[in-house]
Amino acid sequence: MNPNSELGPALQSLIARAEQALDHSLPPADYSPAELHRAMRYAVLGGGKRLRPLLVYAGAHALGEDGPSLDAAACAVELIHAYSLVHDDLPAMDDDALRRGRPTCHVVFGEAMAILAGDALQALAFEILADDAARRADAATGVAMLRALGRACGAEGMAGGQALDLAAVGQALTLDALEHMHACKTGALIRASVQLGALAAGADANALQALDRYAHAVGLAFQVRDDILDVEGESAVIGKTAGKDAAAAKPTFPSIIGLDASRARLAELTDAALAAIVPLGKRAGLLEELARYAAHRRY
Amino acid sequence: MNPNSELGPALQSLIARAEQALDHSLPPADYSPAELHRAMRYAVLGGGKRLRPLLVYAGAHALGEDGPSLDAAACAVELIHAYSLVHDDLPAMDDDALRRGRPTCHVVFGEAMAILAGDALQALAFEILADDAARRADAATGVAMLRALGRACGAEGMAGGQALDLAAVGQALTLDALEHMHACKTGALIRASVQLGALAAGADANALQALDRYAHAVGLAFQVRDDILDVEGESAVIGKTAGKDAAAAKPTFPSIIGLDASRARLAELTDAALAAIVPLGKRAGLLEELARYAAHRRY
Repeated sequence: MNPNSELGPALQSLIARAEQALDHSLPPADYSPAELHRAMRYAVLGGGKRLRPLLVYAGAHALGEDGPSLDAAACAVELIHAYSLVHDDLPAMDDDALRRGRPTCHVVFGEAMAILAGDALQALAFEILADDAARRADAATGVAMLRALGRACGAEGMAGGQALDLAAVGQALTLDALEHMHACKTGALIRASVQLGALAAGADANALQALDRYAHAVGLAFQVRDDILDVEGESAVIGKTAGKDAAAAKPTFPSIIGLDASRARLAELTDAALAAIVPLGKRAGLLEELARYAAHRRY
Repeated sequence: MNPNSELGPALQSLIARAEQALDHSLPPADYSPAELHRAMRYAVLGGGKRLRPLLVYAGAHALGEDGPSLDAAACAVELIHAYSLVHDDLPAMDDDALRRGRPTCHVVFGEAMAILAGDALQALAFEILADDAARRADAATGVAMLRALGRACGAEGMAGGQALDLAAVGQALTLDALEHMHACKTGALIRASVQLGALAAGADANALQALDRYAHAVGLAFQVRDDILDVEGESAVIGKTAGKDAAAAKPTFPSIIGLDASRARLAELTDAALAAIVPLGKRAGLLEELARYAAHRRY
């Protein structure tokens, strides 16, 4: 199913904008080293929800910024996300053969090329953001954006969260420990996405704080919904192997607190996200739509 | 054998400086996620020649800069180098069990943790350099340094070179193709190391160009010497499996042009490196020593 169909026209058009920017940001498939370039393009351009680029655009939009300079940040966070999926899917990690309804990168290109494609995508994300910083009149804003992305990707962010996730297999986690793992593994990059958009829009400290509360709640809500879909969904709809988490003995919200309490937690997080952006007024409409999408999506 | 023993006291003291800076830049081993942090520290702090930090310091020194702000750049390039070794050693890549005389990272920590440690080290390199950029009075210099590092690591640099290297196994490469592969795989980061030091020292375009000619020649010389040592050296001395390249059917300088022509090419590259830095005068003494070390090292 088309993930875009659950979103309104404004966000759908921002997805199209992100797709085009991503296509342009990636090296051409017929240019040496061609196999690496093909693996990078396969990993990034094969669909996906584009949640992180949307959060960049929506976060900036809430502060009145829609300019083309947002595309670099939108690409950077999506390239990081794509690289993390390629590495997480590797046989030594989650060993997943299906992603977005297609064979995973290492299944198509081999493990070595998948590892390298992930590595090159991470480097490209920072390169694109650094190139963007060089074009800004205010270089300090670009530096702040690079710092935010760096922090989100590393051992205290996404990579650290994946390490906690691997260590959690077969373990009886508390709800707090599960939420901490997700706050690192996916939450850090989701928060960075909103932050990059806000920084590009010249946000003050108050706006940054409100948007960060929003992003923290939405990131976690997205993950709770993911766990619920893994129980309820069908592989053909969600585009990956349903029931995979349970089969892999991965702790999930439903496995720790049950399905009903997971739904209640999801509602609580959605309320918290929506409350955080009230001070931003009507311009936060796209952020509001994304919070509702995170909670209700069927894909 | 101690790799430092082939270098004079000034460079040895810069290695000690780099070791200390690296130690401080890495997350503590007893801090969660502890296993990831331990793998990162193991990958970085287990010895090594520290050629790239030395090139940062020596490049800046040649332009009269020795300040503490060089440490960030020195750490960044070494963290990138260390991550690339961890990923290159993986079973799906070069499948090497021995590095710097010790078991490789995945042998000690498992493949999943080795992949993650490499990923986190790459992120940390950019984070450290972005933090350094935020401390600079001139943010634009920091941005230029980040751009240089990003370019060196990606599909047109180090990751692309490793892809070319993998594709070259069992192939009959020309000398040009072999040199292009090395120019990407190791040369790009070596050039970035000198460039980062030069940018931090406020180099003008002439100095940057001279230093880049130097770095290109030294990077290639270092690799020619590596190939010669793989034929001549003993595992116990070079700290990795001797004869590994030939056994893996990897094209090398000796396998393509023979041992004598490889030695002649090494001398030619060393002359080119030394000629490039003549205009910089006496302050380029550390760069000169490093060029001679690259050509004559027994380790």
